[in-house]
Parts: sequence; structure tokens; C-alpha cells
Amino acid sequence: MAKAPVLTPQAEDFPRWYQDLINKAELADNGPVRGTMVIRPYGYGLWERMQQDMDARIKAVGVQNAYFPLFIPQSYLTREAEHVEGFAPELAVVTHGGGKKLEEPVVVRPTSETIINEYFSKWVQSYRDLPLLINQWANVVRWELRPRLFLRTSEFLWQEGHTAHATYEDARDFAARIHRHVYADFMENVLAMDVVLGRKTAKERFAGAINTLTLEGMMGDGKALQLGTSHELGQNFARAFNTQFLSKDGTQELVWQTSWGSTTRMIGALVMMHGDDNGLRVPPRLAPVQAVVLAIKGDEAVLAKVREIGDRLAAAGVRVQVDDRTDTPFGRRAVDWELKGVPVRIEVGPRDLEGGTAMVARRIPGGKEPVRLDLLPDLLPKVLEEDQALLLRQARERREARTSDVRTVQEAAEAAAAGGWARIRWADLGPEGEAALAEQAATVRCLVAEDGSVPDADDAPGNVAFVARAY
Amino acid sequence: MAKAPVLTPQAEDFPRWYQDLINKAELADNGPVRGTMVIRPYGYGLWERMQQDMDARIKAVGVQNAYFPLFIPQSYLTREAEHVEGFAPELAVVTHGGGKKLEEPVVVRPTSETIINEYFSKWVQSYRDLPLLINQWANVVRWELRPRLFLRTSEFLWQEGHTAHATYEDARDFAARIHRHVYADFMENVLAMDVVLGRKTAKERFAGAINTLTLEGMMGDGKALQLGTSHELGQNFARAFNTQFLSKDGTQELVWQTSWGSTTRMIGALVMMHGDDNGLRVPPRLAPVQAVVLAIKGDEAVLAKVREIGDRLAAAGVRVQVDDRTDTPFGRRAVDWELKGVPVRIEVGPRDLEGGTAMVARRIPGGKEPVRLDLLPDLLPKVLEEDQALLLRQARERREARTSDVRTVQEAAEAAAAGGWARIRWADLGPEGEAALAEQAATVRCLVAEDGSVPDADDAPGNVAFVARAY
Repeated sequence: MAKAPVLTPQAEDFPRWYQDLINKAELADNGPVRGTMVIRPYGYGLWERMQQDMDARIKAVGVQNAYFPLFIPQSYLTREAEHVEGFAPELAVVTHGGGKKLEEPVVVRPTSETIINEYFSKWVQSYRDLPLLINQWANVVRWELRPRLFLRTSEFLWQEGHTAHATYEDARDFAARIHRHVYADFMENVLAMDVVLGRKTAKERFAGAINTLTLEGMMGDGKALQLGTSHELGQNFARAFNTQFLSKDGTQELVWQTSWGSTTRMIGALVMMHGDDNGLRVPPRLAPVQAVVLAIKGDEAVLAKVREIGDRLAAAGVRVQVDDRTDTPFGRRAVDWELKGVPVRIEVGPRDLEGGTAMVARRIPGGKEPVRLDLLPDLLPKVLEEDQALLLRQARERREARTSDVRTVQEAAEAAAAGGWARIRWADLGPEGEAALAEQAATVRCLVAEDGSVPDADDAPGNVAFVARAY
Repeated sequence: MAKAPVLTPQAEDFPRWYQDLINKAELADNGPVRGTMVIRPYGYGLWERMQQDMDARIKAVGVQNAYFPLFIPQSYLTREAEHVEGFAPELAVVTHGGGKKLEEPVVVRPTSETIINEYFSKWVQSYRDLPLLINQWANVVRWELRPRLFLRTSEFLWQEGHTAHATYEDARDFAARIHRHVYADFMENVLAMDVVLGRKTAKERFAGAINTLTLEGMMGDGKALQLGTSHELGQNFARAFNTQFLSKDGTQELVWQTSWGSTTRMIGALVMMHGDDNGLRVPPRLAPVQAVVLAIKGDEAVLAKVREIGDRLAAAGVRVQVDDRTDTPFGRRAVDWELKGVPVRIEVGPRDLEGGTAMVARRIPGGKEPVRLDLLPDLLPKVLEEDQALLLRQARERREARTSDVRTVQEAAEAAAAGGWARIRWADLGPEGEAALAEQAATVRCLVAEDGSVPDADDAPGNVAFVARAY
């Protein structure tokens, strides 16, 4: 008799599968206020690992962390016209504080360009103060009408970088550096995510930017998800906040700026890019727990052995957890670790001990086989690296298999509706084609140059548009 | 001619000195919304180091991090009567979201007991789920009428721990463990802070707690500052949110809870406990930069040497920064590092090179002397540990010198007014004496047992009250 599936199968109902997984792997719960989210310890552990790794990469390019206030005077947002137009519909507004009605309502930050520029304009005096490279880890609020855990939540956690430069070129290069050497490098090498790097079309740009660079990933159902963005802000905010510096030539100049962000949405992406019908599959380099050693039964020899294996693997540099909760049935614990996507399970019972082996189950390729205990400390680090590479390869192969080259708007819309991506020359699409796609629920995710690089302009010759339905 | 002081001298105007220091050492700025704060990179660097160290200590006692929403339905707060009474006057209220008036206003969390209990009541089913030990790093908002940077701000950063236990004893012991083995240990050993551990009187307890444990520090002006608190919540929130579990005996029982917090206020405490007329003095174990190597002049040999010294010290495990910004006058840079309180400055000029020495200035004891370059890597770690110990000793000695034993309410109030602390038997003070002190701007900071331990009850025989004016 086939056992009932723990999760709704992906093929049956992908959104339901996602919801089931988030819930049963104990990643998050819905908050009481619409669109808010409780990130549970296992989900938050993934975020902490992402933060640590990203934070080191961000600091390595010379950026310093700081913290700006949650509350922004409403008037700040209106200073940059496109920006307020983009964010006004999503704002949460505080009208009362300390038991009184406020004279000026304050908004809960949806992003911090405005308030940060207020301070940049004080801190930047001379070219010697540039580049000014700041990042903050914070919560932001954008009211969501159709919330979905991790993907669209009214409050989310993120990092937002904000920089000011003396020249256009310096700002442009910095935005590109974050895009490729911080975001793409992290997503590919740590999250094992297949990402397409490109530029947003004018229609899809960040409100207030002159250029938005994006990373787009294909989820398990063939839809696209935007995974991070890096914006060239030009001098738009500098003009609105009068952020000037004294140049080497003794003239007053407006700074050139960038901003860039990545969010807890990456956890949702991890689930939808790597998950399968049995649960999440966590890339080993990210995994808070890379291997779990399970005692099948609560017998003394077994308990002693799982602890010994745990110690040996920890000494070999593996992030390991011992599961000796033998008052919970083994089967239930095994399913739970599978759901949580721990890369390797090492299962030890009395019979294994006799043979000096343990059953090793690999979550990423799947399958289970007996391994001699003395070989584990050498084997595990290799297996983890192999499985890290396999995850990325599987994601890449899926995208390639589900992407088709098309020539017309209609073909592009059909490919997207069928659960895939379409590649189409921007010359064959253009802003009119893009508008037509919107009527069929498809969007241009990004533009990529003929050689796969990120183009300098929307209409650079040879540009190719990636078209998909998106989260 | 004496040079003009960089900061208002402490003896002249302590609050002004504090404000000057925060500003000139670039720790923080006032935010645009009343009471909010911009934490600048140098200040935030201190906070990051505090976070890292505390986070490891919190995890070491078995606590996991999670994240709960910023927004709490207003109705949650009213469920625990004392709690809402305590926090209602300080709430920030969101009445509009996504362009519409909300059906139920939401409050911006002033603390998270209520929303966390909503989830604990779902997650806890059986005694097997206990203890449940959760912490979050987050921002909270409490509207401030008399804000002061780091000490009282409308928004501040903190960690808040929340735990649920099967028995009163287990909860009590856990609150005490956090109080002594996490907070006190961290403050004494890393922040070099002299702290008095005690319990709050009934009057000063957290709103909703049955007991509040506190750590109190004496600032440079003799006032007291509460540095962290750990609360026994009893079953108050469990009752309000029906947080029950199935006991081993098969009965439904309410959980026993704790909560505990420490905040960015610790940065203000660091300034006021260790700072002097020349600026901050950062304890070496905390310092993001323990030693700075300054090139006095931009000559090639000097620049090469400061980099070499920097590399050697880094290899010796010192957190070192090389200051080769020789386009800024040396004197200005030296004053800046002094203001920022970097424990050791190593100053290298052409003349020093000839002698194979550098001038080593120690910020904590003060003074400057030439040291042979080849001795630096061995010397520095020792000097840093010595100076760490010295800071704690100085703080402790000041408190002892400024604390007097008194017998009457009037004497206690006078000692506090004179910029010191008073120790008085609780039997000689009592709730009536405590009320009388309030009229003279003094408060009971905490109660301590005769032997210096933390008493089990307000009226335990031999209890001593510490009385002071407080921030």
C-alpha cells in the first residue's frame, strides 16, 4: 500500500505544495496582521546563514553597516516624484504616537533611499568623503494585497545598500560589481541557484532609478522570481535631497548613487528552486545542519555510537546534529529531516553496528546505502560538495529545458503560459510587445546581451528579452 | 597656550559632554522623526560586535533565533491587563495601510510578549515541546517624550528572549541564568562594565512580570543606568493567551515563562561608563579596531612600514587598522582616533624609523612611549588585556568610592542628589520610603541580598536597596 504523501505533489498543485512545505518543514507561519510572517527557528536559521555569508561579501567590497530609522516623515517620500508614485499605494502610515495624533504622519520605511539621502547630504562635503558605501540589515513594510510567505509579505527582512560616488562611471561600476560579485556569486556558489543576470526594461525599473540590474531564477513550476536587484539611481535622489560635494576642481557637484537589495524572499526561492515532493533540499554550503546522525533505537550502544559519529564529523568540519530523540518514532523523525532538506542523514541501528556500518541517505540525489563508519569523516565533505554542484546543475538544466527561442509576442506569451521561459530578440518585442505581454500575464524579466553579458542600454543591438510569468 | 577642548568637559556639563562625544566620535545622529536615531558606521560597528558575542552566548544556553512581526493587533495588548497599562502611553499606531484605513489599528511592537504567546500557544502541545527557548534581534518602538541618543530613543534595537517552561522552578532558574551567565558575564568580561545584579522592587517591575532581575551600572556622573533585565512572567501571559501543555501526568497545564532584553542602550552605557574628556575608551575585547597604525607623514618608507606593522599585528591576532590618509593632518587624525576610543595608537614617522621604534599611545591608562617595532606583536595582546582589566577596575572603584551606606530616606535622597549611590536596608526603606524617594527624583535601582546575591523576594531579611538618580 502506497503511503499518503506528506505534501501535496508539485505536479498536482504547486502553490499548495509550497504552502504545505513552508508549514510542515516549520519554516514560517502567517502573522496575525494580514501579510505579515513569523519566521520560525528553522527558517530563520537559513536566513542567518545567508546573512553571515552576504555580510562578509558586502564588507569585502568596502561597504560599512549602519542603521537608519524605521519611521520616515511622509514629506520625504514626495521629494522624488517617481519614487513616491511607485511606493504610495504600499505604505503603512503611523498617525498616532505616545497617545497623541501626530502633526505630520510618518510612514514605515518601504525602502530607505529618502531618509538615507537626508544624511548623505550632511555627511558628504568633499570628494574625499566619496565613495560613501553604506549597507543596513533591516525590516521594511510594503502593504501586500496578495501575500505569500517569503515571496510577498507586508513586512520582510532584507539588506539595502546605498552608495554615493563622484562620477557616473564609478556608480555604474559599483552597481554592476554588487550585481555580479556579491549577489550572483553568492546565489550560485552558496545557494546553488541558477540565475540569469540582466537589466530591467524601463517599464520594470525601480521607482527613481535610471537603471535596474536584476537576477532572475526559474522556479520548479517554470515561473520566474526576481532574486535581487542593484540600481543605478543617477542623480535623482541627490537632486531631491541636494546631496552635493566639492570636487577636486573646486566646483559643487551632485553625487551619483546606487542602491541594491536582497531579501528573505531568497528563502522562498530556495524552496521553489530546489524543493521536491518530499520537501526542501538545502544546499550543503548554506545548510545550518549538513548532516544529521539518527539513532534508530534508544539502545545504549547505538546512542554512544551516534554521539561518537557526531563528534568525528564535527571534527572533520561538518555541521552535524545528533538526533537521539528515540521517544519519537524513527520513521517520523526521518520524514521530518527529509522535509527540512538536511543534505545527509546517517541512520544507525543495532544491526548496523554489528556490521560496522551506517545507512547514509543523500537528500539531494536521493538514495540510501550502507557506508563503513570509519570512512564517514573522509566521505562526507566530498559528498556535500558533490551534492552542492548537483543542485546547481539540476536547476540550470531545468531552465535550459524549459526555455524556448521565439520570434513573436504571441509565441512568447504561450511559452510563458505553458510554464516556461521564452527568449525573444528585444528588437522583435520592444515596449509595445512588452505592453501586449502584460495582457497575457507575462512580463519581460530582463534583457541580456547577445553574448550573455548585461547590456548597457535597453535598445543595444542584439539584446534578448527573457519573458515569463513571475511571482 | 592650552588648546580648546574637543568636547565640553564632563565636570562642566555631563549631558552636553555626552552629546558632543556621540556626535564627534560619529556614533549616531538624531533621526528626523522625534526620538529616532541614525546609528552611524562606527557606532553600528560596536553594536555588531555586541550582537555577535551575545548571540553566541544566547545560543550556548540552548536558545534559537526566530523573527516575529513588527505589527501587533491592538487587541493583543489588552489581553494582559498590567502589560497594556504599562505600554499604552508609549505606542505608535498604524491606522492606514495600502492606501486604506485599517479595520483594526495595529501597534508597532513595543516588545513582543503578546504576539509571541499567540504562537507559543499553537506550537506548545506537550511537555516534550518544553522548554521552548526563543530569541529575536529586532527593532522596537516606544514613543519617547525626552529622547536621548542610545539611552532613550523612540525606536531602538535589541534582542528579546522569550521562553516557556513546564515548571515555575525551571522558568525561575532560566531567568537567573540569563541574568548572570549571559548578561552579567558579557557586560563584565567583554564590555568591562561594573554591574550590580539585583531584583527590581514591585514598583519597578516589567509590566506583566512577577519578578524582574536587573543589571545596574554607575555612569561617570554617578547616576545609574539599567543595562539589561530578565523577567519571570509567571503564568500571566500563558493565562491571557491560553498557552497550555499536556503534562507527563496527562493533565493540561499553563506554561511558566520568562522574557529578557538588552538593547543599543549598552552603547550609551559604554560611553558614559568609560568615556573621559578626550572621548570614548572602548574595551579592547569589544573594539572593532583594537589598534590603529598611523603614518605621520606620507613618505614611502613610512607608508611601507605602517602596512608591515599592520600585517604583523593582524597575524598576531590583533584587530588592526592602518591609517595612511596622510592628506589629512596627523594631529586631526590622532584626535579622531582618541575620540573614537581605539585602545592603542601606534604612530610612525621618519624619525621613529631611524630608531627602529614607534610611539605607542594607550588610550585607556593614557600616556605614550616609544616601543621597539619588533616587540609590538608580542606586546600588543598583553597591553590590550591589561587595559581591558583596568577599565573594569576603574569603573568598580568609582562606584565603590561614590556609594555610601545610609539609614534614612532623606540621607538616601541626598546621596543620590549629590551624584552618588546610597545603600540602605530595605527594612529601613520599604514601599513607603520608596514612594518618598520618588518625590526627590531618586529610585530604588535594585534589591541585593546581604551576601551580595540576588534575593528571592523583595522583603527577604537583610535585603539592601541601591538608591540613585537614573537615566
